[in-house]
Amino acid sequence: MWRPFFQPYHLIIVQDGDPSKTIKVPEGFDYELYNRNDINRILGPKASCISFKDSACRCFGYMVSKKKYIFTIDDDCFVAKDPSGKAINALEQHIKNLLSPSTPFFFNTLYDPFREGADFVRGYPFSLREGVPTAASHGLWLNIPDYDAPTQLVKPLERNTRYVDAVLTIPKGTLFPMCGMNLAFNRELIGPAMYFGLMGDGQPIGRYDDMWAGWCTKVICDHLGLGVKTGLPYIFHSKASNPFVNLRKEYKGIYWQEEIIPFFQQAVLPKDCTTVPKCYIELAKQVKEKLSKVDPYFDKLADAMVTWIEAWDELNPIGPVPNGKAA
Amino acid sequence: MWRPFFQPYHLIIVQDGDPSKTIKVPEGFDYELYNRNDINRILGPKASCISFKDSACRCFGYMVSKKKYIFTIDDDCFVAKDPSGKAINALEQHIKNLLSPSTPFFFNTLYDPFREGADFVRGYPFSLREGVPTAASHGLWLNIPDYDAPTQLVKPLERNTRYVDAVLTIPKGTLFPMCGMNLAFNRELIGPAMYFGLMGDGQPIGRYDDMWAGWCTKVICDHLGLGVKTGLPYIFHSKASNPFVNLRKEYKGIYWQEEIIPFFQQAVLPKDCTTVPKCYIELAKQVKEKLSKVDPYFDKLADAMVTWIEAWDELNPIGPVPNGKAA
Repeated sequence: MWRPFFQPYHLIIVQDGDPSKTIKVPEGFDYELYNRNDINRILGPKASCISFKDSACRCFGYMVSKKKYIFTIDDDCFVAKDPSGKAINALEQHIKNLLSPSTPFFFNTLYDPFREGADFVRGYPFSLREGVPTAASHGLWLNIPDYDAPTQLVKPLERNTRYVDAVLTIPKGTLFPMCGMNLAFNRELIGPAMYFGLMGDGQPIGRYDDMWAGWCTKVICDHLGLGVKTGLPYIFHSKASNPFVNLRKEYKGIYWQEEIIPFFQQAVLPKDCTTVPKCYIELAKQVKEKLSKVDPYFDKLADAMVTWIEAWDELNPIGPVPNGKAA
Repeated sequence: MWRPFFQPYHLIIVQDGDPSKTIKVPEGFDYELYNRNDINRILGPKASCISFKDSACRCFGYMVSKKKYIFTIDDDCFVAKDPSGKAINALEQHIKNLLSPSTPFFFNTLYDPFREGADFVRGYPFSLREGVPTAASHGLWLNIPDYDAPTQLVKPLERNTRYVDAVLTIPKGTLFPMCGMNLAFNRELIGPAMYFGLMGDGQPIGRYDDMWAGWCTKVICDHLGLGVKTGLPYIFHSKASNPFVNLRKEYKGIYWQEEIIPFFQQAVLPKDCTTVPKCYIELAKQVKEKLSKVDPYFDKLADAMVTWIEAWDELNPIGPVPNGKAA
C-alpha cells in the first residue's frame, strides 16, 4: 500500500529485537537497515542511550539520517482514505505542513491560514502573519485511536471515524501528547530534541517514548520560536495493541506524568540556549534536578539525554564554514 | 429558515439606528424588541456605554436577558448545511459545546474529548480529564469568511467551503479573534465580560466590538479557570460587507491591535478578582493605565467599561441570600 508513496524517498529501517533475524525488504526501495549489532558498532558505549525492545529504538534512525525532513511511522499503520475515498498521501501533507509557517502566538479560528482557501481572520495582528518556521507536523489516525491502556480497556470497541479536515498550530505555551505513529519533522530545525528516551528492555516504563520527545520538543520549539502543527494527514491504524501488556508498560508513566507535565509546563530555558543541543542539555540538567525525586529512573534518563546529544554530535559533525572557522 | 431552530427560544432583538422605524417580527416568536429610545429609558445616563449605529449595540440584549444561555447572530447569517446536505441546528451544537467541559490546560489531539466517538488520547494527564466549565462557544462561518477589509480587498472572491468537523478548546494563555457573528455563551459564567465596547456613532472605530469582548473574555476565563471552545457549529454567512466602508471603520483598530493584543497577552489579574465583574473592573483600570497612551479613546472606553458593569449590576441585582444578608 505504501509503495507509491514511499518509493520516491530514502528509507531507514531500525530493526528492533533479535539481530540474527533477517528483515526482508520488498524490492525497489532505497533503504538502509540497522539492527542492534549495527547500533552497538556505530555508537560504541554511547549505544546505551538507544532503547531496545521498544519503539523508542527508532530515534537511532533520526540520528544517522542525512536528510532534512524525517517521517516516522509505526508498523501497523496503513494508507487511510479521505471522505471521498481517495488514498491519502501522508508524506505530501506532512511536507506541506512543514514547508508552510506556523502561527503559535495567536490562534486563527479558520485553522492553518496557509492552506488553500483559508487565511488569517479579522482581528489577527498583521505583525504576526509571517508566522514562524514549522519544526514538526503531527498527523492523526483513523480507525484505532491512540488511547492509553485504561481507555482501551474501558472502550475496546471505539473507532475513530471522524475525518477532521484541519491542520492547526499548537499555541506557544501549550503542551500536547505527541504520538510517534505518524509524525514528521525538520531534522535541521529540531532533530536533536527528537530523542525517544529510555524505554523497554531493562527500563521501568514503555509507551512514553514519543510523549517524552513531544514534551521536550514543544518546550524547545516554544523557546526558539519554532512551530508545531497537528491534524492532517491521517493514516489508518489497523490494530490496537494489547491493553493488558500496555497497562504493564504504562502504569508508571500514567502516575509519573502528573508530575512530569507540570515540570515541562514550568520549564524555562535561559536566553543563551540558542541552539537545540544547548536547549536539550539544559533540559537534561533540569530533569536531573527536578524529576530525580520522582524516581531514580529520571536520573538515568537525564544522563542518557546527554549521551544522546554527544552521539548526535559525533555522527553529525558541524562542517567547516567557508571562512575556515568552525560554525 | 431559522424558524424551526429559533421558535422554541426567547428572542431579544436590539434594533439599531432610527427608533421611529418599526421592525416587523414574523408571527409565532416569543420576543422582546428594544430600540434606542428603550435603551435610553431603561439605562438613563448609563445608556452612554451602549454603542449606536454599530453591531456593538447587541450587548444591551445580554444585559436585559434573564436566560442562562445566550446565542447572538448577525442579520446576514443563514442556516448552513453539513457535508451530507442536512441543515445545521446551530443552537443545538452551541448548547452541546456549553454543556460539556473545556480542556484549556493541555491540548487533546483528537479535539473535543467530550464529543461522541472521541476521548482523551494517550498521554493526557488523568488529573485534567474532568475539564473546566465552558463559558463560551465560538461558531464558524461557511461561504463568506470573517476577513478584515485589507484581506477582503485582496481576496474578494475567496469563499470558505471547508467544513471542519471539530470543536476544540482554545488553550489557556492563548488569545483568539472572537467573532460575534455566531457566538454563544453562558451568561451566568461570563455575561458581564461580554461588553462590545464603544463603536460606531461618535467613535473613532468600528468592527472591533466582538474582538474587544473576545480579548476581555479570554483573559478573564483564563484567570477564573473557565473554558472557551471554537469550531462547530457553522452558519452560512451570505453577504460580505463593503470592504471600503470596513476599511474606514477598521483602520485605527488594525493599527491599535498591534499594541492592544500584547497588552491583553501580558495582563495579569490579582488573586482577589474572584468574580467576572471584579475582573472586568480591574481590566478597565489596566486599560486606562496602559492603553490611554495609545489613544485618548481608550480612556473613554475604560470609563464605559465601568459604566457597563454599573448598568449590569443595576439590571441584575443579586437577590437576598437565605440568611438575609446580601450576597
